[in-house]
Amino acid sequence: MRREGTLLLKRSEVAALLRLEECIEAVEHVFRLHGEGKVAPPGILGVHARDGGFHIKAGLLEMGGRTYFAGKTNANFPHNMKRHALPLIQGVIVLCDASNGYPVALMDSIEISIIRTGAATGVAARHLARANSSVVSIFGCGNQGRISLRALAKVRPIKRVFAFDRDEDESRRFAHELSGELGIEVTAVADPAQSVLQSDICVTCTPSKQYFLNRDMVAPGTFIAAVGADNEDKQELDPQLLVSNKIVVDLLEQSATIGDLHHALDKGLVTRADVHAELGEVVAGRKTGRTSEEEIIIFDSTGVAFQDVVAAAVVYERAMREGRGTIFDFVE
Amino acid sequence: MRREGTLLLKRSEVAALLRLEECIEAVEHVFRLHGEGKVAPPGILGVHARDGGFHIKAGLLEMGGRTYFAGKTNANFPHNMKRHALPLIQGVIVLCDASNGYPVALMDSIEISIIRTGAATGVAARHLARANSSVVSIFGCGNQGRISLRALAKVRPIKRVFAFDRDEDESRRFAHELSGELGIEVTAVADPAQSVLQSDICVTCTPSKQYFLNRDMVAPGTFIAAVGADNEDKQELDPQLLVSNKIVVDLLEQSATIGDLHHALDKGLVTRADVHAELGEVVAGRKTGRTSEEEIIIFDSTGVAFQDVVAAAVVYERAMREGRGTIFDFVE
Repeated sequence: MRREGTLLLKRSEVAALLRLEECIEAVEHVFRLHGEGKVAPPGILGVHARDGGFHIKAGLLEMGGRTYFAGKTNANFPHNMKRHALPLIQGVIVLCDASNGYPVALMDSIEISIIRTGAATGVAARHLARANSSVVSIFGCGNQGRISLRALAKVRPIKRVFAFDRDEDESRRFAHELSGELGIEVTAVADPAQSVLQSDICVTCTPSKQYFLNRDMVAPGTFIAAVGADNEDKQELDPQLLVSNKIVVDLLEQSATIGDLHHALDKGLVTRADVHAELGEVVAGRKTGRTSEEEIIIFDSTGVAFQDVVAAAVVYERAMREGRGTIFDFVE
Repeated sequence: MRREGTLLLKRSEVAALLRLEECIEAVEHVFRLHGEGKVAPPGILGVHARDGGFHIKAGLLEMGGRTYFAGKTNANFPHNMKRHALPLIQGVIVLCDASNGYPVALMDSIEISIIRTGAATGVAARHLARANSSVVSIFGCGNQGRISLRALAKVRPIKRVFAFDRDEDESRRFAHELSGELGIEVTAVADPAQSVLQSDICVTCTPSKQYFLNRDMVAPGTFIAAVGADNEDKQELDPQLLVSNKIVVDLLEQSATIGDLHHALDKGLVTRADVHAELGEVVAGRKTGRTSEEEIIIFDSTGVAFQDVVAAAVVYERAMREGRGTIFDFVE
């Protein structure tokens, strides 16, 4: 019996423990397992509140001989910053030993939600963007824009970035910060149309409810990571973009209900059969990734529970090795 | 902005803060709200593990001007005690302010799961058992047997109790403890058939996967609380018992899938239309409760998320008033 108490990890500790490179490798690993049919289908549960909502993602994963369960409860309240000076997304991850149910850790979910999503963008770009991709457009210059660019810079030789945000202060701050941090040219742009046409990779990570990226803006060969849409109301891509371009999703069931895909399905422009692959199938080599320099490939990212499980397990194991966090015994 | 950190409450603190009387009233209140259509449908999510499973129940509730969200993650590992010296059920409740998503408390779920279930049995008995009910049979002499009897003793003039458990040591210990605590006659019985026939109320709260209570054992007028079955494999009542007796469920959707009801539905012995009411409808006065001294009424209890939300909110509010628990800031 292991009965060491429950490890509590706050946001700053999680941020220090979860390195992006390690998270990209871990997330790639779990997508591969999923593609090989070795990961049980994850679960998702939503509860609406007046000014926002709660969603729970839960899943199970074997890692290094241990099996972990993680359930992430995230609150998403769009007006939080202005009304309450609280983050838009807040939450907690419960990590359990899946051999006996013991809650081994409780940790803040904010950093994991951000980083594991960025890591999926990196994994997708590694398999779906042209190898020599060097120019990137980013729509949405918040936390997710930052981590997406950092992840892309880990997997592709990024040299030039165009940053767009409806709030121009945000895009300027983003350009200043990220150019310094990554040592590449990052430019804030007011009208993204021309920049997207020059880009090898385009990431959309906004809270938009109306699409803003359409067919005319996208050059042949572009890889598009559509990250923002993660509920039924959000939308970033013109549904026409999904017609006759290669669609890869993180999890078909989720993309078909809460991703950009679902708008195209709703309009009858595509069917589920038009989806080329789930990302895990590509990573596992069961489906092809990019097969030409010209094809436009769209990755519809909605965020899968197994990304949370693996990231939480990585954080927990490093915390235990390095003696971080606070032990609290809930069952006294 | 309220930003007081997250309150951590361990099992012993929750046990001290959640009084049964108060929990019965709170649970009755939330069932009434549900019966009045004022509670949003709760959500439930299950994840299977090799030796057990995890289930998450989540819901939203307004209480005293504040709106709370609670998500309960419970691990259920039947062999835990023997293999790991850990409880069969373990878990954590995340309680959030539903106006902004802030996680106001994290608390051990064990006591809440036990007490809110016993409280529902009490509420159901108050509305469905004969007013002069004084003789009780209890099947299953664990934690749930104890709290069921305590709850019944709060709402009905209980004088005599028959206790049955497959482990006779358990039923003897139960009889000894509860007779002392409640000052009533509690007898361990080896063969429950005769005792049930003499009983006004019968509670089944076992982990059984095969039914053991059948029509011949139950006298007219009995109130049966079927508490044990809370997943698709568990069963306590002969499906024939549900035929032509009054069935009240806590939540139709759950009883039809994980309660004793679902076995009778599967066999085609009853339909959903044969269910008389959800408990909340009876509490709210929208459906009748007991209408004769002779009818047998069965309450199929599966455990609803809003019971957890209200119990967690009661615990949290008392903890804040009394200055209990430990504050931990996850978002530093």
